[in-house]
Amino acid sequence: MTFDGMWSAIEPIGRETSTGGYRRYAWTRVDATLREWFAGEATARGLDLVTDRAGNQWAWWGDPDAAVAAGRSGVVIGSHLDSVPDGGAFDGPLGVVSALAVIDALRTKGFAPSCPIGVVNFIDEEGARFGIACAGSRLITGKLDADTARGLRDADGVTMAEAMTAAGHDTEHVGPDEEALRRIGTYVELHIEQGRRLIDLGRPVAVGSVIRPHGRWRIDLEGEANHAGTTRLEDRRDPMLALATTVLAAREAATAQGCVATVGKVRVEPNGVNAIPSRVTAWLDARGPDEEAVRSVVEAVGRQCGTAAVEESWTPETLFDVSLSQRLSELLDDAPMLGTGAGHDAGILATAGLSTAMLFVRNPTGISHSPVEFAEREDCHRGFEAFTRVTEELSR
Amino acid sequence: MTFDGMWSAIEPIGRETSTGGYRRYAWTRVDATLREWFAGEATARGLDLVTDRAGNQWAWWGDPDAAVAAGRSGVVIGSHLDSVPDGGAFDGPLGVVSALAVIDALRTKGFAPSCPIGVVNFIDEEGARFGIACAGSRLITGKLDADTARGLRDADGVTMAEAMTAAGHDTEHVGPDEEALRRIGTYVELHIEQGRRLIDLGRPVAVGSVIRPHGRWRIDLEGEANHAGTTRLEDRRDPMLALATTVLAAREAATAQGCVATVGKVRVEPNGVNAIPSRVTAWLDARGPDEEAVRSVVEAVGRQCGTAAVEESWTPETLFDVSLSQRLSELLDDAPMLGTGAGHDAGILATAGLSTAMLFVRNPTGISHSPVEFAEREDCHRGFEAFTRVTEELSR
Repeated sequence: MTFDGMWSAIEPIGRETSTGGYRRYAWTRVDATLREWFAGEATARGLDLVTDRAGNQWAWWGDPDAAVAAGRSGVVIGSHLDSVPDGGAFDGPLGVVSALAVIDALRTKGFAPSCPIGVVNFIDEEGARFGIACAGSRLITGKLDADTARGLRDADGVTMAEAMTAAGHDTEHVGPDEEALRRIGTYVELHIEQGRRLIDLGRPVAVGSVIRPHGRWRIDLEGEANHAGTTRLEDRRDPMLALATTVLAAREAATAQGCVATVGKVRVEPNGVNAIPSRVTAWLDARGPDEEAVRSVVEAVGRQCGTAAVEESWTPETLFDVSLSQRLSELLDDAPMLGTGAGHDAGILATAGLSTAMLFVRNPTGISHSPVEFAEREDCHRGFEAFTRVTEELSR
Repeated sequence: MTFDGMWSAIEPIGRETSTGGYRRYAWTRVDATLREWFAGEATARGLDLVTDRAGNQWAWWGDPDAAVAAGRSGVVIGSHLDSVPDGGAFDGPLGVVSALAVIDALRTKGFAPSCPIGVVNFIDEEGARFGIACAGSRLITGKLDADTARGLRDADGVTMAEAMTAAGHDTEHVGPDEEALRRIGTYVELHIEQGRRLIDLGRPVAVGSVIRPHGRWRIDLEGEANHAGTTRLEDRRDPMLALATTVLAAREAATAQGCVATVGKVRVEPNGVNAIPSRVTAWLDARGPDEEAVRSVVEAVGRQCGTAAVEESWTPETLFDVSLSQRLSELLDDAPMLGTGAGHDAGILATAGLSTAMLFVRNPTGISHSPVEFAEREDCHRGFEAFTRVTEELSR
């Protein structure tokens, strides 16, 4: 199956007819369909499919365990297939489809790799369902505790353990997976750019340099439910006013600190037109050039809304393997090196001490996490051609 | 069954174990259970149960159609059984349970009414599921168009017609119901007070005088979905900022105009932690001493958020029958006359030209539309005793 054929095959899976956006959440029926598709593509190529303790799927060309036994390891390429709510088609799938196309391209040219090559589909990268991004890579590297993960609940109160079980994944062995990690000598993730730097530079492909520090915080704004028509303004404890303060404080502090801050998710209880809310929960996403700047944004928001923000996740600045990245940049005709504010499984593996790098493919609008996220097909092809050169170089 | 017995019977129906609040939405399984309970209480008393075109339930002592044929009509007492999201136990059910207890009290004392007496359970008073308050009374009086009602959708996209059908209610004949209205000579609704005036006055029961003008508006705040980590602040169109402006503008304008205004319901799309929302929808509830004041609040909010508010419902100032109300006040030892900011089915019937009145029962905290809504049992008993005196007087 060609790149274009694979792209067409997964295009309808989990797509909303109303918006054209995707709802591909971990451990759902839609996710299962995508995983079956991935397994089918692996089988069609004669690759060995391995599912690790967290549920990440690995399709191997060559025997990675024989390589490990011989004191060597493999080159892994890929990304993820899940999406944010109403997400785009490219964030994740572009890397997985490109990686499968790389295998075909290398075989077509008769290339004989000196080490096993693996294609990975990381589970639950976006954290859209259970709130923790990169759950699959965090679990196998021990950065997310297995019991914590099993107990995470989605919006319907379903735990991750229940969701895994319903999807047929054994929850007992969820946790760090040394065996899976040992097989990885180098990991390279290809991803659509989430910004407009490549447009400005007039280049189709970049190499990632750094993931800027970022985190998620929950802010619980307590009020008192009461009748919207009969309660005097002076008698109210209305947490919607505190939400307004929070949103404006976040923007103001982010501007002052050279960061970005977003309140993208809100839960209002009971959410009735004629009831003053009893509670509003807001989630704050903040990222910036350094930890100090980001933390000062979060503290300023907490001060102004009178409620300390509860940290749900924190990822410090992550440098990809510098010498590897420079080598790839040179290989790709001095491709530009770009930092990013977005987290990726490649970042989680980098902080776990693995050698990782990233490739970014040009995004003409810069828009991501949206149904209108887009990349030109020609740029996608250039992306997987670059991915092919990189994989060949690393497994020569 | 005594007042206390009936109260205990319905107490667990539709109650959330987490908050102790109620979710009794129209045309749900919970609603069906309440309607079955009401029908059972009617049968146990030998009352004739009639369900009108909108689904309101009427339990008659005496033959209302014979009375209509003779040029007379009945006295109707009651309220509703549905709730807001996470609502209290009293708003609605206090009036229905009290009305049934009134029948028992009148019979116990051997009273022989000169006209039929009806107990009513209005359907969908709160509008919690389909967004239109007093849908049952609006439908039979023609104030809500039948086709509009049938097409209203709940949060899951289910139309009111589908919900009615699922509950076994014939949707074909939904609409104005002259037959049901002709049977009503006078309607008196008993309701928990939604405020603290009776506490201040040291009185257990009041008579309603006026419902202040009120309405609901929807405000559609459009943005552009994008990645929370990679989109520069200056490139964003973030509708959450407009929500903040809307909430603060509503409070400011309400204060300036002597009104109350509430943003109690919000929908964020796609509502992902790491996605700038593509759209935020806010619902504004505004009420005040006169129409001009309320409309100036709504206009001020629209001006400040840059989006005209869409009117979803509007109820002008509603006076109950003045001479009836004064007569009831005198009968009840000069009970105080109170206006209210809350809408009621009694208000809908009043604007349709029917003679209506209301009784309010003391609420020690003034809190309503909340799990902690409360009335002392002794005050509830005083309420239905007053209700009994009123019903006896009107049907003597």
